[in-house]
Amino acid sequence: MAKEKKLVEAITSMEEDFAQWYTDVVKKAELIDYSSVKGCMVIKPAGYAIWENIQAELDRRFKETGVQNVYMPMFIPESLLEKEKDHVEGFAPEVAWVTQGGLAPLQEKLCVRPTSETLFCDFYAKDVQSYRDLPKLYNQWCSVVRWEKETRPFLRSREFLWQEGHTAHATAKEAEERTEQMLHLYADFCEEVLAMPVIRGRKTDKEKFAGAEATYTIEALMHDGKALQSGTSHNFGDGFAKAFGIQYTDKENKLQYVHQTSWGMTTRLIGAIIMVHGDDSGLVLPPAIAPTQLAIIPIMQKKEGVLEKAEEVRAKLAKTVRVKVDDTDKSPGWKFSEQEMRGIPLRLEMGPRDIEANQGILVRRDTGEKITVSLDEVEEKVATLLAVMQKEMLERARAHREEHTYDAHNYEEFLDIVNNKAGFIRGMWCGEQACEDKIKEETGATSRCMPFAQETIADTCVCCGKPAKKLVYWGRAY
Amino acid sequence: MAKEKKLVEAITSMEEDFAQWYTDVVKKAELIDYSSVKGCMVIKPAGYAIWENIQAELDRRFKETGVQNVYMPMFIPESLLEKEKDHVEGFAPEVAWVTQGGLAPLQEKLCVRPTSETLFCDFYAKDVQSYRDLPKLYNQWCSVVRWEKETRPFLRSREFLWQEGHTAHATAKEAEERTEQMLHLYADFCEEVLAMPVIRGRKTDKEKFAGAEATYTIEALMHDGKALQSGTSHNFGDGFAKAFGIQYTDKENKLQYVHQTSWGMTTRLIGAIIMVHGDDSGLVLPPAIAPTQLAIIPIMQKKEGVLEKAEEVRAKLAKTVRVKVDDTDKSPGWKFSEQEMRGIPLRLEMGPRDIEANQGILVRRDTGEKITVSLDEVEEKVATLLAVMQKEMLERARAHREEHTYDAHNYEEFLDIVNNKAGFIRGMWCGEQACEDKIKEETGATSRCMPFAQETIADTCVCCGKPAKKLVYWGRAY
Repeated sequence: MAKEKKLVEAITSMEEDFAQWYTDVVKKAELIDYSSVKGCMVIKPAGYAIWENIQAELDRRFKETGVQNVYMPMFIPESLLEKEKDHVEGFAPEVAWVTQGGLAPLQEKLCVRPTSETLFCDFYAKDVQSYRDLPKLYNQWCSVVRWEKETRPFLRSREFLWQEGHTAHATAKEAEERTEQMLHLYADFCEEVLAMPVIRGRKTDKEKFAGAEATYTIEALMHDGKALQSGTSHNFGDGFAKAFGIQYTDKENKLQYVHQTSWGMTTRLIGAIIMVHGDDSGLVLPPAIAPTQLAIIPIMQKKEGVLEKAEEVRAKLAKTVRVKVDDTDKSPGWKFSEQEMRGIPLRLEMGPRDIEANQGILVRRDTGEKITVSLDEVEEKVATLLAVMQKEMLERARAHREEHTYDAHNYEEFLDIVNNKAGFIRGMWCGEQACEDKIKEETGATSRCMPFAQETIADTCVCCGKPAKKLVYWGRAY
Repeated sequence: MAKEKKLVEAITSMEEDFAQWYTDVVKKAELIDYSSVKGCMVIKPAGYAIWENIQAELDRRFKETGVQNVYMPMFIPESLLEKEKDHVEGFAPEVAWVTQGGLAPLQEKLCVRPTSETLFCDFYAKDVQSYRDLPKLYNQWCSVVRWEKETRPFLRSREFLWQEGHTAHATAKEAEERTEQMLHLYADFCEEVLAMPVIRGRKTDKEKFAGAEATYTIEALMHDGKALQSGTSHNFGDGFAKAFGIQYTDKENKLQYVHQTSWGMTTRLIGAIIMVHGDDSGLVLPPAIAPTQLAIIPIMQKKEGVLEKAEEVRAKLAKTVRVKVDDTDKSPGWKFSEQEMRGIPLRLEMGPRDIEANQGILVRRDTGEKITVSLDEVEEKVATLLAVMQKEMLERARAHREEHTYDAHNYEEFLDIVNNKAGFIRGMWCGEQACEDKIKEETGATSRCMPFAQETIADTCVCCGKPAKKLVYWGRAY
């Protein structure tokens, strides 16, 4: 078996070179491939199937809160992009411009959407008239383009897939509630479905979205101790409404501006799954999101009855789990390695002797634990194991994060931690951008968020020593 | 009631001005809105929900045949687009070009995909090595851009949503089988789900896809007698494989070119649904695709118990149908008109007297028929009626098509029909493009397809009188 395992090309170990390990897993688990279009990727079936599961579950949760899906054009005329000052400043440097349509140059150039606030605002300005038209709770699933210089599969690419929700409300209070509601929806999704614990909090003004009054974020810690912003939710107040003239008549027949939010999650989540759960054998998928939850791998499959029994067990299990039989003509050892590389949560090994004893061997992808199971009880056992794995993967990720979260009470401690350890650093902050700038310049760490769960771990700013206002999570980030 | 009906703005009648009727329905049923981006539309929740149902059902059918979803970049470098000669000639005049990324001009301009054959080929050239890698059965759901001069909602817009399947096979036979399989899948979907009968056939060389060896098509007849190409499936043979160098080693270790297909359906189907089933009260949705299948409209809803009963019935029905209660503060007459405009297949009227008698009144959107139903039997009755409507809508559309299909045995008859009637014209064809060109120039009619079900209705070409080779469906088309 040891020899056959080599049949599947080895991947770089995480300890040796985490970045290379990541690239190896992404390629060897067949999630993506590079394309002839620089900075853009091909999402292959194994990668796209994960995205489909993310979409289905997020979409269901959105709709439960009253959200409806729509589709806006992918192009934004330059004049529209420029209507909100902060927004255009944030995005103009990184958009792709269409300047020619058919054989003729365009009169006005169009950017390929980097995000669609301006299009939704343009639409709402026409579509919203009365308080009866509110709230508007719209979302779209689409791709967006940001002309990044350095790209990495899933984490940063020139084109990526996402959803962007855009809502309009009668009052500031409703908009704030929706902003926070969607952040918690994202956080719950990450924890319940992706088994990925997140810190929920607010971005500092320096880190907030271009044009937003407030940006909320969920921040996850990757295996290498770097942070990954995993979803954001923005409250725009009435800033965009004023720039775009989105007004409604209230019950007293007075003209009012709407209050807006937007919120998004992207294919970057697939990168997060890899970097939170993966190991030196490849991907490890949480059962709730795994396209295949169980791979049945027959042993000596040419022996009479083996494949038939495997198919019988598959058919029985298919009622409750996503299951496949690997009946290709590869060796069992190769199949084990492939199943591990692809992160399929469970495998069931079944050979002639197992079948004679009416049993199989279940192997957990996350722990490697082997469990002999009677074929009469395989349904219950698989269901139980998948649930246990889902829970334990979250617990392990949370324990890893706690072990890699450090408190810094002054700048000396901060420097010591940032230079010698990898993880979140909790440190108090005076509220001045100068301190964020200094920390970023001197250490590469940025303020990830001001957590909703505030504590006072010191009275003074971790950077300048002046009176502290907020607890901040700091860290180097993707 | 008659007076209240006017509350919903009237739409132009179909007889008076079909094009205006179509535009009115699209707007008043709130399927789309125009955007600030010329030629692009905003698909609103009522329109997008139809697309989501189309997607879900098509995607399920694709996957049953082994198709997997992927995602390719939205940009195609100019050099890649140019690799297959016929293909680039077909598409280059109508693509949008990105020439600037961020603040700098691009070294090579990129077109926004009008279709993705070139990207799939570029990918397959790297990804396919051995016969073991075949077949590749990939599909993607995305938006594409074609820089049309004249646009109409759903039917022709500069950006539209679609799916594009791209497969690669070891043999020409397999590719041909897949091409036809997908065409029949499309046709069955149109008939079973959209209640829209289609003619299945092959395009002439003049009308086939740029770069294809053979294009198959399904053609539907709209209410105004014009044809709508509703889905196409292309067999590329090994033409693209040779242009892109897509080769595999077969079992005898010899290098072979793959054989490829592609097939697509678009948001244009929503336009087809409108023009096949709609009437002067608005949209009529086939039950199988309707986002809401039944609207419960309470009468005198402020009376005690009315809304409670409506909700009770809704909860009971929600187990088997997509149902909503319209409890807004509009009048029942207004609600009826709205439900009709939006094409919701059934409504259930329930007032205090009905409730006292434990009954409600079901009204069919397609026929206007009113059926008094006991609330004890409402589930069965609704299920039966929806099934009957689905069947009868297909039958009516088929009868309409048969009534508007005419045989022409010579050019005189052809001209008489095309000038005085609207519909399909069946006429024999010699196989020469000159006759297609002449017919198009003189009548505006084009060859829609050579149906699979061939007959001989004359011995000579309907245009030139020379010996005929094929029966062709001709017609003016969208």
